Amino acid sequence: MALSEFGLIARYFAACGAGRPDVRLGVGDDAALLVCPPGQELAAAIDTLVEGVHFPPGCSAASTGHRALAVNLSDLAAMGAQPAWALLALTLPSADEAWLSAFSQGLDRLARAHEVALVGGDTTHGPLCISVQILGHVPAGTALRRSGGSPGDILFVSGTPGDAAAGLMLEQGRLAAAPEAAAALRERFLFPTPRLALGARLRGHASACIDVSDGLLGDAGKLAAASGCGAELLLEELPLSAALVAAAGETRARELALTGGDDYELCFSVPAERVAALQQELPPGEWGYRAIGRLRAAADVYVSSAGRRLALAAAGYDHFS
Amino acid sequence: MALSEFGLIARYFAACGAGRPDVRLGVGDDAALLVCPPGQELAAAIDTLVEGVHFPPGCSAASTGHRALAVNLSDLAAMGAQPAWALLALTLPSADEAWLSAFSQGLDRLARAHEVALVGGDTTHGPLCISVQILGHVPAGTALRRSGGSPGDILFVSGTPGDAAAGLMLEQGRLAAAPEAAAALRERFLFPTPRLALGARLRGHASACIDVSDGLLGDAGKLAAASGCGAELLLEELPLSAALVAAAGETRARELALTGGDDYELCFSVPAERVAALQQELPPGEWGYRAIGRLRAAADVYVSSAGRRLALAAAGYDHFS
Repeated sequence: MALSEFGLIARYFAACGAGRPDVRLGVGDDAALLVCPPGQELAAAIDTLVEGVHFPPGCSAASTGHRALAVNLSDLAAMGAQPAWALLALTLPSADEAWLSAFSQGLDRLARAHEVALVGGDTTHGPLCISVQILGHVPAGTALRRSGGSPGDILFVSGTPGDAAAGLMLEQGRLAAAPEAAAALRERFLFPTPRLALGARLRGHASACIDVSDGLLGDAGKLAAASGCGAELLLEELPLSAALVAAAGETRARELALTGGDDYELCFSVPAERVAALQQELPPGEWGYRAIGRLRAAADVYVSSAGRRLALAAAGYDHFS
Repeated sequence: MALSEFGLIARYFAACGAGRPDVRLGVGDDAALLVCPPGQELAAAIDTLVEGVHFPPGCSAASTGHRALAVNLSDLAAMGAQPAWALLALTLPSADEAWLSAFSQGLDRLARAHEVALVGGDTTHGPLCISVQILGHVPAGTALRRSGGSPGDILFVSGTPGDAAAGLMLEQGRLAAAPEAAAALRERFLFPTPRLALGARLRGHASACIDVSDGLLGDAGKLAAASGCGAELLLEELPLSAALVAAAGETRARELALTGGDDYELCFSVPAERVAALQQELPPGEWGYRAIGRLRAAADVYVSSAGRRLALAAAGYDHFS
């Protein structure tokens, strides 16, 4: 059944996400009107998912709705910011109501979990492509940046990177695993968890932070470069999930942890003298993060094992390379 | 030559648009950090252009860069808001440097003209699709909405609607015209002018406002519906450009003025008792707007000629209908 563009928007997106008192005018006019709290900076990011590039053709619509918002929430997590409002630019080949219903539910569930209001958008006809714009706040002057690290700072990562890449390979039939491990890894690709609570708590502890979307090694390298540093990552310290090791074996698991994409974990640096305070306030076992290396003065970024440098081919996912 | 995604962004977009002191952190981190002025509401909109839908395949890249921003600036104009910051989600089939150079120049020129900073974005691989997110400000409580009109309010439109639709037809070879008229009409499609100065000055005068993107009749109808009204448009009062009449003839020119898209003019309502003050402060000849009808209590929207209602087939452009 064909729905008009305006019918579509009204039906699936007008009530999507949380209600917020700081939304003066939401979906349905030429622009949304929003109230910024005093003393805060506005944090703004935009990220796009393209079918066949960021998710396989025919991927679950609920997952696509979740991921379209999650990848943006992850950007705010990396700044230590609190999300507030989102806008959705949705380009669709056809007005498939079953797809739209599942997509909007996936988006809605995650938006409500983080009290994000959907305040505007644009629905257009074309190859499936989803851009979400996220807006949030962070107390002025306190945001985490990529550029604040110094040589000697300890590098940490949250979660167990590599899981999402294995989950995508399972979705695509390029990897096989026992049902329990397969389900856990698929879940990490289809429904990643933006680390908003951790990011907010890292303000005042971390010297620099980035979200891991294109592979840990590449993204740690970006943090290091923005900080004018190099980095050493310790192969044996990479946090690997039992599911990943079971599905891929330990060697391949470490490769995926270093170069797989789509994890949406946080990689952050902490001055060595502040690590004890960090670990006291945010116990690593409870908050799920682990030291994996350190920033160095020399500009190169490498992985070492038992004190020896390793040669690695892929340095994270890069469009157009 | 292939450029990496990050090289692309750095090369063409890092210095795009105006510099602004309220940008604490621009392109290159996980999110931009921006300072909202006190006493203002934040106005936010997102609009997408898809190749083959919103512009013909092979259309000038400079025009596409201009239009991607212009359609968003037009949304802020319709709210009476002042633009400040933009984010760009650019999906490209390949890293064509000639295209990127012209596209970024088209975007940059318009951004600088309105003091808009490009503060973030995302470049991905896929079918050509461009979403721009625009952020701006409007003094709290003063924004123009679609919903403020009342029966009896006079309806106005800026510029000469229909020109852009004729310009697109010329681009596509579906219309022929003498060189001077053709150039003028093409320019209206390729490089539309967002009516930001007019929108800002309409605050305090207009009861409701919308930008004309999908056709005057349809968009006037949306303003009327949001205001709980109907509307009468007067065929003889439609402002037609000499170029449009020369290219299309008077009858077709009026049809295009009513139903053609892509004009990015403003349609607004003003209470009858305030029209004299509006016209005194903003002389219509100088500001380029004209009365074309009025809002009515009855819910229907129609065009009349010499006191008789006309039957019209198309009510503006609607995706998916």
